[in-house]
Amino acid sequence: MTSPTARRGLPTENSPESFGVTPVNRVKRVHDRGRYDRKTVYEILDAALVCHIAYVIDGRPYCTPTAFWREGDHLYWHGSSASRMIRTQAEGVPVCLTVTHLDALVMARSGFHHSVNYRSVMAFGTAHVIDDAETKLKLMDRFIDRIYPGRSTLIRQPNAQEFKATTMMGMEIEHASGKVRSTHVGDEEEDYATVPAWSALYPVTQVIGEASDCPRQLPGLARPEGMADFEPGTRLDELMTKSYRRTFG
Amino acid sequence: MTSPTARRGLPTENSPESFGVTPVNRVKRVHDRGRYDRKTVYEILDAALVCHIAYVIDGRPYCTPTAFWREGDHLYWHGSSASRMIRTQAEGVPVCLTVTHLDALVMARSGFHHSVNYRSVMAFGTAHVIDDAETKLKLMDRFIDRIYPGRSTLIRQPNAQEFKATTMMGMEIEHASGKVRSTHVGDEEEDYATVPAWSALYPVTQVIGEASDCPRQLPGLARPEGMADFEPGTRLDELMTKSYRRTFG
Repeated sequence: MTSPTARRGLPTENSPESFGVTPVNRVKRVHDRGRYDRKTVYEILDAALVCHIAYVIDGRPYCTPTAFWREGDHLYWHGSSASRMIRTQAEGVPVCLTVTHLDALVMARSGFHHSVNYRSVMAFGTAHVIDDAETKLKLMDRFIDRIYPGRSTLIRQPNAQEFKATTMMGMEIEHASGKVRSTHVGDEEEDYATVPAWSALYPVTQVIGEASDCPRQLPGLARPEGMADFEPGTRLDELMTKSYRRTFG
Repeated sequence: MTSPTARRGLPTENSPESFGVTPVNRVKRVHDRGRYDRKTVYEILDAALVCHIAYVIDGRPYCTPTAFWREGDHLYWHGSSASRMIRTQAEGVPVCLTVTHLDALVMARSGFHHSVNYRSVMAFGTAHVIDDAETKLKLMDRFIDRIYPGRSTLIRQPNAQEFKATTMMGMEIEHASGKVRSTHVGDEEEDYATVPAWSALYPVTQVIGEASDCPRQLPGLARPEGMADFEPGTRLDELMTKSYRRTFG
């Protein structure tokens, strides 16, 4: 019997262009929204500041929001309570790291066709603690710079206590899939003419506002050049993409 | 030995005012940000449209974004691929449903004190499929009305095929905790005077834009009265809270 993946001609192995489609990452519900090419998956990840990470402790699932970033095929984030478990498991633990951008509310003429527009990625891998001190220090700097380009050179470096208190975690992406809906209202053909319900799409954006200076700001300081993109009203996803490119090229 | 929970005088059992603090839902990292009172937990949930749900299949964690809503101590959402597993397990499956509102970027004078402001909730329970047809139909209507007050009476009702294709899932909240950061920049005392790094807070908001009419809108239709709060520029969290109150009082 041919698998649904093979039937649809999708690759089953990771390649430079695409993630392979496996039973783990295959998009099952509304599968034509599935995206497996690295360009789309990376763009969705790099436009995000916050992800949600699922992991298992004693058979029970946990879902923790946290800031993260990508370098090549690796994802990094700060330690959470999961790290306790990871430190006791030399092999690392399986995690699913999910990113979601909400782009629109979509009102249709039937409940069934109500929807939202979104861009999401589910990335699967095995989380491990970054123990090497030099690597960890570099990652701590890049975590800051990824959001605020160049900032790691302006701030005080971590002291021994802060360094110890910070758990840096990483994972290689083993499987990943994106899912995207970006169309307008889509109804059953017979409903357009017969259902007199006002139907529309409301775009949704996440934006930054005006900076509020620290009340104890030293005199003479201003927004540094590396943060020129931090203009009030800027979309956070576009800002994170720009910051990412300034830092990682 | 006294547990940290008992030492801090927190209740260990659910009550009308609060969720009990147990090893499952106790906020471990930066524990003074933990919130267990129902008012705070419910407000964070009811201001959200999208959550992330963690569940386990074959020992592997999955984290799926989806729309959801609360009624009393129950949370509801549409079926995901997890439902296949749930249908084979009469007892239901443990899930963690997490909601996160990102409120600000917080830049400090050390990497350690960089942060974000946020409101989040992790809710733990056992997911089950809503099989009773009458209950399921009512929930399908309320899913629409919770977002667009009164809309379920304007649209076409689900046909048999749509009804069958929709899996409605629910869970009672067994444990829950909120976590909130809402303060400004907070640095080590000695850093304020000695680190010449511009430090600030950028508010982050998620807003709706101008409605885009369905290109096949029937003539003479306009935004219905129940959606009077859907004004361009409105914050999505405030809008969802208002819609929630219009629908559930």
